[in-house]
Amino acid sequence: MSQTSKRKQRVLRILHKNRDQYISGQELSDRLEVSRTAVWKYIQSLREQGYVIDSSSRLGYCLVKAPDILSPEEIKKDLKTDLLGCEVIYQEEVKSTNSLAKSEARQEAEEGTVIVAKEQVGGKGRLGREYFCPPGGIWFSVILRPNMKPDSASQFSFVAVVALAKTIDELTDSVPEIKWPNDVLINGKKVSGILTEMSAEIDQIDYLVLGIGVNLNIAVDEFPSDLKNKATSIQEESGQQIPKLNFFLSLLEQLEEEYFKLQTEGFEKIIEGWKEYNITLGNEVTVTSNNEVLTGQAVDVDNKGRLLVELPNGTMKKVVAGDVTLNTEYN
Amino acid sequence: MSQTSKRKQRVLRILHKNRDQYISGQELSDRLEVSRTAVWKYIQSLREQGYVIDSSSRLGYCLVKAPDILSPEEIKKDLKTDLLGCEVIYQEEVKSTNSLAKSEARQEAEEGTVIVAKEQVGGKGRLGREYFCPPGGIWFSVILRPNMKPDSASQFSFVAVVALAKTIDELTDSVPEIKWPNDVLINGKKVSGILTEMSAEIDQIDYLVLGIGVNLNIAVDEFPSDLKNKATSIQEESGQQIPKLNFFLSLLEQLEEEYFKLQTEGFEKIIEGWKEYNITLGNEVTVTSNNEVLTGQAVDVDNKGRLLVELPNGTMKKVVAGDVTLNTEYN
Repeated sequence: MSQTSKRKQRVLRILHKNRDQYISGQELSDRLEVSRTAVWKYIQSLREQGYVIDSSSRLGYCLVKAPDILSPEEIKKDLKTDLLGCEVIYQEEVKSTNSLAKSEARQEAEEGTVIVAKEQVGGKGRLGREYFCPPGGIWFSVILRPNMKPDSASQFSFVAVVALAKTIDELTDSVPEIKWPNDVLINGKKVSGILTEMSAEIDQIDYLVLGIGVNLNIAVDEFPSDLKNKATSIQEESGQQIPKLNFFLSLLEQLEEEYFKLQTEGFEKIIEGWKEYNITLGNEVTVTSNNEVLTGQAVDVDNKGRLLVELPNGTMKKVVAGDVTLNTEYN
Repeated sequence: MSQTSKRKQRVLRILHKNRDQYISGQELSDRLEVSRTAVWKYIQSLREQGYVIDSSSRLGYCLVKAPDILSPEEIKKDLKTDLLGCEVIYQEEVKSTNSLAKSEARQEAEEGTVIVAKEQVGGKGRLGREYFCPPGGIWFSVILRPNMKPDSASQFSFVAVVALAKTIDELTDSVPEIKWPNDVLINGKKVSGILTEMSAEIDQIDYLVLGIGVNLNIAVDEFPSDLKNKATSIQEESGQQIPKLNFFLSLLEQLEEEYFKLQTEGFEKIIEGWKEYNITLGNEVTVTSNNEVLTGQAVDVDNKGRLLVELPNGTMKKVVAGDVTLNTEYN
């Protein structure tokens, strides 16, 4: 980080600590050991980022309002995790946080590093599908380095979806529902996307990148028309505007809790949480995977996260991956 | 490729076509539309690479002997594959061909691209173990993009080891033996190493890099002392010096054959070939994996490549990965 960025962050920290109080330009200049003109420049730059800072020639500067942005300073100030967010990389606009995360992981980024973007312009869903990621949502990736085999990778999508459902449940009045394997729906429409990617040897994951997108404060008329009957936002369904920062911090904490749970108590415990929000099991489903389509009763999820589907002739199919349609009224 | 490299390659192609015949500097200069001085410079540069080119002021130039190097020109001249080697990248010295291959794959390198090095200075074995890769061996990686799930990745190591055993069997008098999962031994000592790495989503391999090292023409006294009782070279065991280029071309052809076989006939067919060279099954083995050690009878390999080990108490263990010691006279 440049000297200038560091000093700007320090100004911000001091303003945050003295929230709603004035601190004189002279004191800031003394504490940072820079000129008062330099202090003024840092204040200007913070204002451009959206911070509302009152200034008075007699009293000095006072932070009135911090913008709802997911910058490292705002995140780290209140984050209560041990691992996730140890390092936070924030970008106004990226093609895809997963791509950036993979590149950081190759350059030895630590486990727990979080890459977060205000906006993704080339967001990807599963199998390269396009994904719509405007500024009102939360778009981020976490780098994990679990000492596990590549065939465990799908477990981390379950970790993510459970953390997400719990966060929505906790912070909003909406009822989150999980569709197998890792779609979170509210009132039958998707509010999030999860994309897990990894680099691995045959018997060892090198790094795993968990990409999570949340349609938080997005007006539904912002959605492309082909998405409108499939996707929604948390704001739209709950009628509440949850500050991005609050939601993100809670989500990171939940994510860490579920990640540690996976490692200490095993995948069965994750599935237990998953079942609490599940709307797939017990229903008739149609599963499309690799151009194969099958319809049957979704009976259970096994200890590898596979969906067990009982076909009309009584045989049981284990589905590893695919798109599920619930054959119910709203799907 | 630079204009100079292209012209040099063209000179080489013309010389190869007129092998053991003289072609005048004037003719080369006319065909390439460059000065005779430029032609002379290309000839000099080829000589530096090890090409023996006779020159006579009256007759011109004549290729007497091509060096045994795995350059794209030498490889492509005689390669009879459809996919593997469609693109060949040659480096005198790399840290690791797998690393370079992964970087090329990320930049959309085509399936079948081969990265080959005269020498690897940071060669890696499984789980980051160091690997000794002097110029007398063959060190290369192949980029594959199979439309398969990540849990199939181990199948490609089996593809590689079978291709390798078949090539040794065909070109030398030595008897190759495969130790589970993918070590090729001659007289109980390793002559090769295989490292498979991949980048994947949960249900789809993005790219897979198959790294193969062969101890071909290496004098055994070149080996570090701690390797001498575990590793050997094909030259040492067979008493034959097989030209690197011949070996490499045959290996690429075998590799392609087995790769196509995997995709059209399935993994069972690969295992069939594997079993012909196997020395693991039927023996008592000790398997070390993840700090767990077990000893028992190696009974079979299942359709996922797992080693089935029958413990003394009669229970059957399925081993996904690990180091196997054969409890026989020479291991």
